[in-house]
Amino acid sequence: MPASPIRRLVPYADQAKKKGVKVYHLNIGQPDIKTPEIVMDAIRNIDLNLIAYSPSQGYASYRKKLAGYYQKKNIDIDENDMIITTGGSEALSMIIGSIADPGDEIIIPEPFYANYNGFAKANAVNVVPIHSDIETNFALPSISEFEKRITAKTKAILYSNPGNPTGYVYSKEEISKLRDIALKHDIYIIADEVYREFIYGDTSHHSILHEKGMENHAIIVDSVSKRYSMCGARVGTIITKNKTLLQTTMKFAQARLSPPTLGQIAAEAAIDTPKSYFTDVITEYKDRRDTLVNKLKEIPGVKVAEPKGAFYIIAELPVDDTDKFAQWLLESYNDHGETVMVAPAAGFYSTKGQGKQQIRIAYVLKKESLIRAAELLGKAIESYNKK
Amino acid sequence: MPASPIRRLVPYADQAKKKGVKVYHLNIGQPDIKTPEIVMDAIRNIDLNLIAYSPSQGYASYRKKLAGYYQKKNIDIDENDMIITTGGSEALSMIIGSIADPGDEIIIPEPFYANYNGFAKANAVNVVPIHSDIETNFALPSISEFEKRITAKTKAILYSNPGNPTGYVYSKEEISKLRDIALKHDIYIIADEVYREFIYGDTSHHSILHEKGMENHAIIVDSVSKRYSMCGARVGTIITKNKTLLQTTMKFAQARLSPPTLGQIAAEAAIDTPKSYFTDVITEYKDRRDTLVNKLKEIPGVKVAEPKGAFYIIAELPVDDTDKFAQWLLESYNDHGETVMVAPAAGFYSTKGQGKQQIRIAYVLKKESLIRAAELLGKAIESYNKK
Repeated sequence: MPASPIRRLVPYADQAKKKGVKVYHLNIGQPDIKTPEIVMDAIRNIDLNLIAYSPSQGYASYRKKLAGYYQKKNIDIDENDMIITTGGSEALSMIIGSIADPGDEIIIPEPFYANYNGFAKANAVNVVPIHSDIETNFALPSISEFEKRITAKTKAILYSNPGNPTGYVYSKEEISKLRDIALKHDIYIIADEVYREFIYGDTSHHSILHEKGMENHAIIVDSVSKRYSMCGARVGTIITKNKTLLQTTMKFAQARLSPPTLGQIAAEAAIDTPKSYFTDVITEYKDRRDTLVNKLKEIPGVKVAEPKGAFYIIAELPVDDTDKFAQWLLESYNDHGETVMVAPAAGFYSTKGQGKQQIRIAYVLKKESLIRAAELLGKAIESYNKK
Repeated sequence: MPASPIRRLVPYADQAKKKGVKVYHLNIGQPDIKTPEIVMDAIRNIDLNLIAYSPSQGYASYRKKLAGYYQKKNIDIDENDMIITTGGSEALSMIIGSIADPGDEIIIPEPFYANYNGFAKANAVNVVPIHSDIETNFALPSISEFEKRITAKTKAILYSNPGNPTGYVYSKEEISKLRDIALKHDIYIIADEVYREFIYGDTSHHSILHEKGMENHAIIVDSVSKRYSMCGARVGTIITKNKTLLQTTMKFAQARLSPPTLGQIAAEAAIDTPKSYFTDVITEYKDRRDTLVNKLKEIPGVKVAEPKGAFYIIAELPVDDTDKFAQWLLESYNDHGETVMVAPAAGFYSTKGQGKQQIRIAYVLKKESLIRAAELLGKAIESYNKK
């Protein structure tokens, strides 16, 4: 198992804090946005005297209500096309376990969410990366690049949309291309759509299940973590219309007995979250994104992949190695007692040597904090390159 | 992945119910005992407006309080010797992933909790069974039987104590023998101690960490599921004083981000459960056990392994195949509109052909229901053998 590239730096952050230095955390995906009031009320009014197992597939009442959410998004599924999981993490783990044997391969455009690597490794499955580039904001690589990598061992293409860590939102055309590859080569498309609601501007989200003919080849990974700012509920979903696959995955679901009961009660309540909650949240994130992108662009030598969704930005810095730089920021730098923690982007690449000058920033802090953090980053780059 | 031996029968139970037949569920480990009031109060009074991720290792406040629980049991550990997991299931999964590579072996006395097989399979690890016998109530097999099975690929011996499905409680002497084997052959002992509190009579629970010199070789799997009747909280624990192992396991913990936040809040509250709760629960289970054992013994040809702990009994029935019998009970049998669902024990053995005449019964129903269920079982055996 690879160590988490972000969490490696945690002890350095702890030490900085012990020395009294304030650390701005640009490294984490834990939103500061409040969970909808309707969710907290459901927990406070819980009508149970026994916290029992739920069915392994998840509560039927929750699955029914959740199916309604997808139907409103024109994703034509019902409560039997899904398994409720312990977060998106378990959804990914179970899917990889279900579709691949040790030694099989999954193609993933890089940079990608670092834990994809962990889940693949835990299943002895090999990740085959395919380069996407900061110059094109990390758009989908060309079909020919995918086809070069498809072998008899290829089981799936996995991507997140909107992208973590890229913030890129795949267009309808790009998703259609993936569909064509999947059907031609009879492989799965695993679409991690947990950031579905976080799209800024006019682009609308195009799901893999909006594509026709993908009943047997599309798998959606979803989660309530980011959508309702309830990461700790640990409630995710596997969605597929492929019944044989779902049966296999149910064996994994049964072995771990059930997803969290309290989290499911919270998640079921969350579906009634008023639209205004999302409007407010999206407005807030859009504002943060615009602020941060502008501030980062002002730093000499910094290149930014302008994100259209999620709440991450990949930035390329004029430093030799962002892993060293990130450690240095915590160990040796401060400006008026303040510094920044960033995630070195090399951990989001599986090709060695890639992303060495890039960092991932999560804009889950308030605007004023983001402005100060960007300022710190600019000053720090200058100091770092002078030493 | 093997299908759950119990859940295979669920559709037959559903059909019986659709026909209006009442089904007594002797097959499930979901206790009917109420969760402590103190736990439900903690949830109702939850003081959060954001359900955030917890640390991957689990909340420090919970780990500290939990360490106190173990210290009272003379298990000398602190909050840094543990990782909080999503139930005992995830604890087992992560441990197997951490100690074994594909093709490695784990020795398990059979019959054993069926999902051990699932977690091993998911990690491409081979289970090496060792026979324990109903005639000795499933006592620990002899040392020489273990040593016959130890190879260069053996990574651990895994057992549950008190036993699921056997109800057997290993003595201090038996646990000491396991310690000797572990130290001699440098392998791990994984002790699933989730039923620790459920011991009837004078035997006291002997933990693997009560043994001296096991700092590097002992791993405890624990869970709040049964102890506080809160299976749906999905909160378990991995305990070991082996720091290198814990570091490896932390990588798995980090990849799945965090255990459930709401469940941990419930579990932390549960530690203050008054002693009277356990006294009442133990009295209730002991009464159920005695009732059920006596009723089963009255059925001609039935052999019972008298359980000393947990809430399971293995019984040997005078039928050709309990898998067929269990299905027949649901499909074709009823007495005044009532029948019984039992778990065929073959699923708890990894050696083919073993346990074919045995069933596992969970006595998690009220006494009157157990009496009626045993009566139904007796009548059904007679009818089954006449057809």
